[in-house]
Amino acid sequence: MLPPTSVDLSSDRFTVVYHLTGNEAEVKGKAEDICIEQTIEFPADLIPDDDIRLQIFGQIESLRPLDNGRFEVAISYAIEISGPELTQLLNVIFGNISLKPGIRVERLALPDSLLKAFKGPRFGRAGWRKRLNAPKRPLLCSALKPMGLSAQTLAGLAYKFALGGVDLIKDDHGLADQCFSPFKERVERCAAAIEQANRESGYNCAYIPNITAPTDELVERALFAKEAGAGAILVAPGLIGLDTMRMLADDDRLNLPIMSHPAFQGSFISSPENGISHFALYGQIARLAGADASVYPNWGGRFSFSREECASIVEGTAVPMGHLKPIFPAPGGGMAMERVPEMLEVYGKDVIFLMGGGLHKHSPDLVENCRYFRQLVERI
Amino acid sequence: MLPPTSVDLSSDRFTVVYHLTGNEAEVKGKAEDICIEQTIEFPADLIPDDDIRLQIFGQIESLRPLDNGRFEVAISYAIEISGPELTQLLNVIFGNISLKPGIRVERLALPDSLLKAFKGPRFGRAGWRKRLNAPKRPLLCSALKPMGLSAQTLAGLAYKFALGGVDLIKDDHGLADQCFSPFKERVERCAAAIEQANRESGYNCAYIPNITAPTDELVERALFAKEAGAGAILVAPGLIGLDTMRMLADDDRLNLPIMSHPAFQGSFISSPENGISHFALYGQIARLAGADASVYPNWGGRFSFSREECASIVEGTAVPMGHLKPIFPAPGGGMAMERVPEMLEVYGKDVIFLMGGGLHKHSPDLVENCRYFRQLVERI
Repeated sequence: MLPPTSVDLSSDRFTVVYHLTGNEAEVKGKAEDICIEQTIEFPADLIPDDDIRLQIFGQIESLRPLDNGRFEVAISYAIEISGPELTQLLNVIFGNISLKPGIRVERLALPDSLLKAFKGPRFGRAGWRKRLNAPKRPLLCSALKPMGLSAQTLAGLAYKFALGGVDLIKDDHGLADQCFSPFKERVERCAAAIEQANRESGYNCAYIPNITAPTDELVERALFAKEAGAGAILVAPGLIGLDTMRMLADDDRLNLPIMSHPAFQGSFISSPENGISHFALYGQIARLAGADASVYPNWGGRFSFSREECASIVEGTAVPMGHLKPIFPAPGGGMAMERVPEMLEVYGKDVIFLMGGGLHKHSPDLVENCRYFRQLVERI
Repeated sequence: MLPPTSVDLSSDRFTVVYHLTGNEAEVKGKAEDICIEQTIEFPADLIPDDDIRLQIFGQIESLRPLDNGRFEVAISYAIEISGPELTQLLNVIFGNISLKPGIRVERLALPDSLLKAFKGPRFGRAGWRKRLNAPKRPLLCSALKPMGLSAQTLAGLAYKFALGGVDLIKDDHGLADQCFSPFKERVERCAAAIEQANRESGYNCAYIPNITAPTDELVERALFAKEAGAGAILVAPGLIGLDTMRMLADDDRLNLPIMSHPAFQGSFISSPENGISHFALYGQIARLAGADASVYPNWGGRFSFSREECASIVEGTAVPMGHLKPIFPAPGGGMAMERVPEMLEVYGKDVIFLMGGGLHKHSPDLVENCRYFRQLVERI
């Protein structure tokens, strides 16, 4: 038994709603285990009846059965055990228990006293719309690819997309700093091509280079991209770390919207019994980590997200989270223009439509395809 | 159709072995899809018979059924599409396809021409053993916890562990920079307590503070820890990003062994049909990302890893990977001293035994418990 301890915490707590698999007795045991595993990670019988037991242990706030045979359990934690650090907040939410079966993070309820530690999205929906001069309609985004094209050829594609009225042109997330299209050359050429197209068209298209890169080069690449004329940056937080994305969002020198790409994050959402919900990962957590738009695979494309899962992401991008701004859902992945009307039903107007290969397929004239795409959303 | 392209790549390729779920026709389709999704991510029918098709597309090298109804498929990629960046290498291995069901990364086969881009573990098993003056026997590690204790009380525990002959004393991975035990105060007090114990005992115990923290504070914390006398650092790459761990390993100013903690990584290994194998994640990828020891839950403890999965991690920590050094497996998670003989059967001597709560439980005298633990492994 350890000696009793004096800990002086506020009474503010944040709550994580988990879905747990098992019968009621198993789920109760699992919930009690989470309260320990995510906090003291120590034999509870060696902890005296003291401040640690009262304040540091997680607390089960509610437990109820769901229709699908699982249970919804809300567990609260003292805000001081995460403190103002996203790394430690994520650690408390799902650090060690990510290694245990049948536990899924469903949603977060964070009090303002904790949220004030996070700046969240710098622009959010309204701020990004203002930059693009597109107050209401859905935004259009396409991607520069395939990998293997030269920077010059990619810039040629960028010019056509921009001339046709696409709002946002992102690098494919597989464009890094490869010999066939070095980062700096690509960024300079593509930014210049889009600027040229904007001058001709009067549109306000923004270039979003992929700056997902080694941690010690990230900020330099982001600042280089800004200097070259990029209008936003693309990062994959699964590859660079969620808090590293947060660092970029908080950087006043950068001051650019951030588009978050889901690469390498799929294992979190691949099972209904484990991981993190689409709502929390691509909505709430993306916002905590400073994304202004959250890319994910649309239903019915090349991937396997369901329509309901996509709708839950939309909800997560706008659910009240104190001062954290709502952000854009950016569905993509094997999209075709024919699907825009159906998508509008789920997404409404606050959405970034992400279309890559589909824009090339509509007709042989890429600029015309973009114009058609733009007209589709301008009629709305 | 895009115009034909000229790409001039070496003939060197790296290979990822995937396990795919489905019948043979489904698996063939899935394998072909991986070749596209992880590279050009573009409609293949729009790519002419040119260098992109020949060099950039992934190539199926082999496909064979496994006993468990799944298939083993080896796919090779040009080394130039990852280039020398760990972020992009991981992206090619499992970026977008992490979002598709029934795909698991089983193991990596990376040629020296790619591996030379990565320094890997700075110390590895031999280098860390030399620092600790423990050439052959298993190493002993314990953890400072529970969360909620003051820095002074944690330092008192550290003193006792060190006096009893524990080789490595790590912060619990939940100790960050909380009000009850601020980072700097904790690190200074614990490092000093261990130094004091070493002077009295003649042992060579090393302190491993947890520096998992916001990305913009990581290097500062690591250097502070080194200055204070830390003998290694603990990070959770699931929280800070794998490449961020790599950055710390490569930092010559730091020059300390790195212990990698599995928090927030569990979703990768929670399903036999999705994610990344234990072998690849805690072995091969941990080494690529510069870890000198890889912590994971031992079988039969609080977690659900099997004995076979643990054995596969051991294999991954030492499997030939060019110049990348073998690293220590560090099994923990609800261990008891009674299990040491059984663990030796699987782990042999090249292991770090990680025991937290178990060391407190053996008897009321913590120093004596540590001595007993040490004697157990010195007899081997």
